[in-house]
Parts: sequence; structure tokens; C-alpha cells
Amino acid sequence: MSSNAIAQESLALHKQWRGKVEVTPKMEITTRHHLACAYTPGVAEACRAVAADPAAAYDYTVKSNTVAVVTDGSAVLGLGNIGPLAAMPVMEGKAALFKAFGGVDAFPICLDTQDTEEIIKAVAAIAPTFGGINLEDISAPRCFEIERRLNDLLDIPVFHDDQHGTAIVVLSGIINALRLTGKNKHDVRVVVNGAGSAGIAIAKLLLSYGFAHVTMVDRFGILSSQCPNMNEAQEAMLQTTNLEDVSGTLADALCGTDIVIGVSAPGAITAEMVASMADDAIVFAMANPTPEIFPDEAKAAGARIVGTGRSDFPNQVNNVIAFPGIFKGALAARAERITEPMKLAAAEALAALVSDDELCEEFIMPDPFDPRVADAVAQAVSARA
Amino acid sequence: MSSNAIAQESLALHKQWRGKVEVTPKMEITTRHHLACAYTPGVAEACRAVAADPAAAYDYTVKSNTVAVVTDGSAVLGLGNIGPLAAMPVMEGKAALFKAFGGVDAFPICLDTQDTEEIIKAVAAIAPTFGGINLEDISAPRCFEIERRLNDLLDIPVFHDDQHGTAIVVLSGIINALRLTGKNKHDVRVVVNGAGSAGIAIAKLLLSYGFAHVTMVDRFGILSSQCPNMNEAQEAMLQTTNLEDVSGTLADALCGTDIVIGVSAPGAITAEMVASMADDAIVFAMANPTPEIFPDEAKAAGARIVGTGRSDFPNQVNNVIAFPGIFKGALAARAERITEPMKLAAAEALAALVSDDELCEEFIMPDPFDPRVADAVAQAVSARA
Repeated sequence: MSSNAIAQESLALHKQWRGKVEVTPKMEITTRHHLACAYTPGVAEACRAVAADPAAAYDYTVKSNTVAVVTDGSAVLGLGNIGPLAAMPVMEGKAALFKAFGGVDAFPICLDTQDTEEIIKAVAAIAPTFGGINLEDISAPRCFEIERRLNDLLDIPVFHDDQHGTAIVVLSGIINALRLTGKNKHDVRVVVNGAGSAGIAIAKLLLSYGFAHVTMVDRFGILSSQCPNMNEAQEAMLQTTNLEDVSGTLADALCGTDIVIGVSAPGAITAEMVASMADDAIVFAMANPTPEIFPDEAKAAGARIVGTGRSDFPNQVNNVIAFPGIFKGALAARAERITEPMKLAAAEALAALVSDDELCEEFIMPDPFDPRVADAVAQAVSARA
Repeated sequence: MSSNAIAQESLALHKQWRGKVEVTPKMEITTRHHLACAYTPGVAEACRAVAADPAAAYDYTVKSNTVAVVTDGSAVLGLGNIGPLAAMPVMEGKAALFKAFGGVDAFPICLDTQDTEEIIKAVAAIAPTFGGINLEDISAPRCFEIERRLNDLLDIPVFHDDQHGTAIVVLSGIINALRLTGKNKHDVRVVVNGAGSAGIAIAKLLLSYGFAHVTMVDRFGILSSQCPNMNEAQEAMLQTTNLEDVSGTLADALCGTDIVIGVSAPGAITAEMVASMADDAIVFAMANPTPEIFPDEAKAAGARIVGTGRSDFPNQVNNVIAFPGIFKGALAARAERITEPMKLAAAEALAALVSDDELCEEFIMPDPFDPRVADAVAQAVSARA
């Protein structure tokens, strides 16, 4: 089906749905007795229980299973800064996926401000309702500060899915790509092309997992001490990446490298670059909808394993295999943070869902519709919480 | 069933429910094609449509049918200032009623602040998601300023149900009580006992409807120019109530009066006071759970029609017959405000649902479970929008 046909079908469906999620009571309310139990006067007893012990909110209220999907509309999909109202269809879609894939109740909160301080205040203000906050499509570098400060302020987890959800899924795919190629995380050389929020989060999680040789590249070239115009988050990455402090272009970086992960721009990786990589090269080209290099071209140039962001090629790097289970597990554990060990456990659990029999160049990550996915991730996450 | 038995049953049910509302997708998401339509890449088309025309949010997003139930937990039921987290069971219950009675999606937002400015900022920040804001259980006099300023700031209706929902239902009952007694709104004398947010809203709506003689009383006596310690909202009521500027006690105020509406304290109205009222006296004793005077006692003292806040007596004054239809109508009309004419139309529509055949001393307001209620109110409200 052409992308234009999908777009038109989707728009017509959106008009029919008039909103993709609804809020429904869990109980019947058709008698006075029902009213007295679900509302006044009976409800006062649950209020008193929570007033006496705030932790009881997890027993008696939606806080136990509800996540806010929060955006300011500043960096939506491939659409950019379209603002909070126009971001609604994406946030509603995300909320729908939370429930469909993880059984987690999620509600879209689109904020009418793009000011860091005001975003932090608004999210902190609405936090009592929620058991977790999923930040979504907030532009870098503001997303780093917003997430960090909200995690410090609140006693519920705050998780920027564009960063960490992406990083977890990429790591799971890389783990299985190494299984397949027999290479070792301590030895391989990894290049991350794109030094925005996703790229930085991917590099950090790979380093946490034990990858020793990670180099970041942005449109000005390899991130090094010689690189001008880096933001604070990029500069901080020099402490742990490109330890030999090499300068150069993406082509320079890829020469002899085992793995390249693109979160950059359509066509950014050429066949020549792939051909210059090490044997059994692993290429994740996740620019959407047009990847850094198409799978057939990358394979022709010598890549052994290729992943993209698209559902019409094998090995789709799709956050939907991570975020529902991550929040499901964090909520089950009443976790206050989603920590680095929890993220690593999620990636390992995803990788482990692909059996030795199934594992091949065209299948390194579980299918989003595999019914085991969310529970496997949730159990791994809650065990580490 | 005793109130303690209801309390215990309700608490056990709350533990079983673990939250009274859930957020569910309106569509199936079990194939890649579903994913492509409800989420990426198809969703981008709906985003573009809203970015091009903000009004399209009512066609393509939950804004078309979704209300925030917002509190700061400062004045919850009979429980007082129990804070936002402990208020959750009430706000969830209200959200459940919105859907069960009006088909309106409503989501609880419990704010972790009781500062007027911060509440206004937080609600304004989250407004893009919603088609209306239902303020709930916010203490006076802050509730007046919060509602007024949010209505000025936002292009969606902001409605403090404790004030206006209550006033609408009271007015509907009074309209029918007058139908029954043959008295006229221009002639009758009305006393409102209790000069908090509900009492003031009731007095205002009665005056809007054309009642000429309204007197307010609080625990210090009749509101008059001689009254000390009035707040700004109470002082403003002297422009339109107690035009003869009488001073005195509640007993003084009730002598010869046709209607008394109590939103005050248990036992505040005595049999002697009722006996001193005009013939065919109308008594609404809405203190909860113990009314200002019990119906049997009021009737024995000469009252013809008695209403209370309780479901175990006739003529329950219950907001649930108003708010679901009011927001349903406002959302259908995409109204920016819920105006005085819309409130009056709602009260008249409710009153009109009781036919001449049905109308009697024990039945002046429609039953909450009468399936016509929400649509009758919604149609009246949206016709006046």
C-alpha cells in the first residue's frame, strides 16, 4: 500500500474515531447502590484510606496503572515543531499502544508551553494522578533537563521514550546481531551517526552494557575535542566516546567499523561507506520514512545485518516492543525511577525472546505482535527495580 | 443498608477495581496495517490537518469529547482539605459518571498545589488535550477567581460543578415546586442558608431566572450591610439580594418565607423555623449526609415539599442529572463558555422532564437513571450555546 494511500485511510479513520482513546468506567453504574459504592457516600472511605497512607493510592486509584504521555509538540515524528494541539494524534496513538500492547492505561497530555520551567511545573503539578510519566517528542537539548529535573522532583518514573525506548530496542537488536556474527561487545567498534537525544541515549546505553569503542558523529563530523558548536550533552559524551579523540567525517569514522547506528538523515550513509566497514557489518539505518541507506543497497555493499525504522523491511526498530512492558514493569514494582539496570534488563529480555532457531539476518528482534513481549520486558524491569 | 456497610463494601470494591476508569483504544491494533493507520506513519496526516487548522482537533482528536475533572483536593465532599492524592477516588468517580450518564470521556487531574496562580497555570498548560474543564472540590473563595480567570484565558468552557451544577439542579427542583404550589417566581421569598460557593451560585442563578426576593444567610446571620467579615463574593451579593437590607438570624429570615435552600450544616433548620414559613413551604435541606432538617420533621412542621442531598429520601438534589448533559451539550456545540442562558436552559429542561402526571410532592426532579436526562440537558445547552 502506498504511503499516500495509508495517509488517506488513516485520516478518514481519524475522522471516524474522533479521538483514538476513550475513558471508560470499570464498573456498571445503573442502580443507586452502584452509585453509592462508586461515588458518594461510599467513595469517602477510599479517600480516607489514601489520606491516612499515600501509598494506598496504588491500591485504590488509577495511579496504580496509569501513565501520562506528555509532549510540548516541539519535535513530533518527522513533522518537527507543530505545537501541542497538532501533536495530539501522536500522543493519543501512543496511549492506545500502551493499552493494546501492555495493558497500561495512558492518557495524552499536550502542554501549551515550550518553556522548560513551565513544562517542569505543569508535569509536577499533575503528577498525583499518575504512576509514571512518558515524555514524548520534546526537542533536544531541553528534553535532557526536563527529564532529569522531573526525575529529581517526583517519586514516580519519568522516561523520555524517544531516548531510552529507542536505545533499549537498538541494544536488543545489537545484542542479537552479535550473537549471530559471534563478535564481542568489548571488541567491536560502534559508530552512532546523529548526536541528538536518541543518538546520545543509544551511545550511553551501549556504553552501560559494556561496549568499549563507541564514536559519535553529527552532521559536522566526528564528535571530538576539535568539534565546534557542541551542546552540553554532546560535550559530556566526549568523556566516554571517541577515546582516541579522532577527528574526521562519517566516512572516516565508518572505515573498519563493525556497527553503524543511524539516527540522522535520509541517504546519510553511502554504499562506499558500508563497503569500507569490517566484515559482517551491522547497519541500523533508522531515519524515517527514508533510511540513511536502503537495506538492499547496504547488503549489496557488504552489510550482513540491516535494521530500519520501517515495518516493510525486516528488523524494524520499533519502540512499541519496549515502552509498554517497561512501564508495566515499573508500575508493578511501584518504581520511583527507570534506572540503567532496568533498561539493560529490558534489552536483554527482548533479545532473549528470539530463540537460537529463529535468529537469522532477517530476524534479530521479536515481532511487535508477539504476545510474550510486554510481559517479558515487564518481568525483567520489575525484577531489577 | 447502613452507611458503614456501604463504606466497607465500597472500600473492598475500590481495592478490586484498582482505579475506577480505564483508558482504552477505540480501534483494534493487532496487525501492522492497524499500527500504520492508528500510529506511524499514517497519523502524521491528522497532525498536519490540525496544524493547518486548530479547529480540526475537534474532528480528529479526543478534544471533541473529553473533559478534565480538576481538583486541588482542598474541599473534598464532607472530608475537607485532604489534598490531591486522597481526592483521586472522588475525581475518578466523577469521571466514571461522566461516561456512564453522558457518554463524555472525562479524566481525573489532581493537582499537587493549592496556590491559585499555580493552579491556573497548570490547567492552562494542559488545556490543549481537553474540550472542557470541570473544576471540582476547590475551596472558596479561591474557586471563584480560578474559574473566572481560566474562562478568560481559555477557549474551552471552565465550569465549577460544586457551584453551577448544584445551582442548576436546585433551580430545576424549585421550578417544579412552584408548578406544584402555583406560586410565582416574581412573588416568592427565597432564603439561601449557607454563603459559600454553592449558596452564592444558587442565589445568582435564581436571580438570573427572575426570582426577585432572595436573601442569603450564613452562620453569622443574614448577609446585610451590617454583617462583619464578609468575603468579596459575599459582599458582591448585597447588590442583588436582601434589597431591604434586613439584619437578623436565620429564624428571622425564614419567618413568612416561601422557600429555604440549605447548603449549610446538619440540623441548622429547626421545626419552629419551618412552622414560621409561609403556607406550602418548600424546604431544600442539602447538608450531607445529615440534612439541615429531616424530611419527616419538616413535613410535620408544615413544609409541603422537601428535598435533600440523600438518595434514601424523595427529591434528591443530585448533580449527576446536570453535569454529564451540560458538558455533552457544550462539547457538541464546541462552546467556549457555559453561559447563564445555557445554565437556565439546562434547569428548565430538567424540570420539563417531569410530566404533569408525574409531578407531586415526592417527585419534582427526574430520576438520575432516567435515560432521557443527559440528552435533554445536552440539547437545551447546545441550543443556547
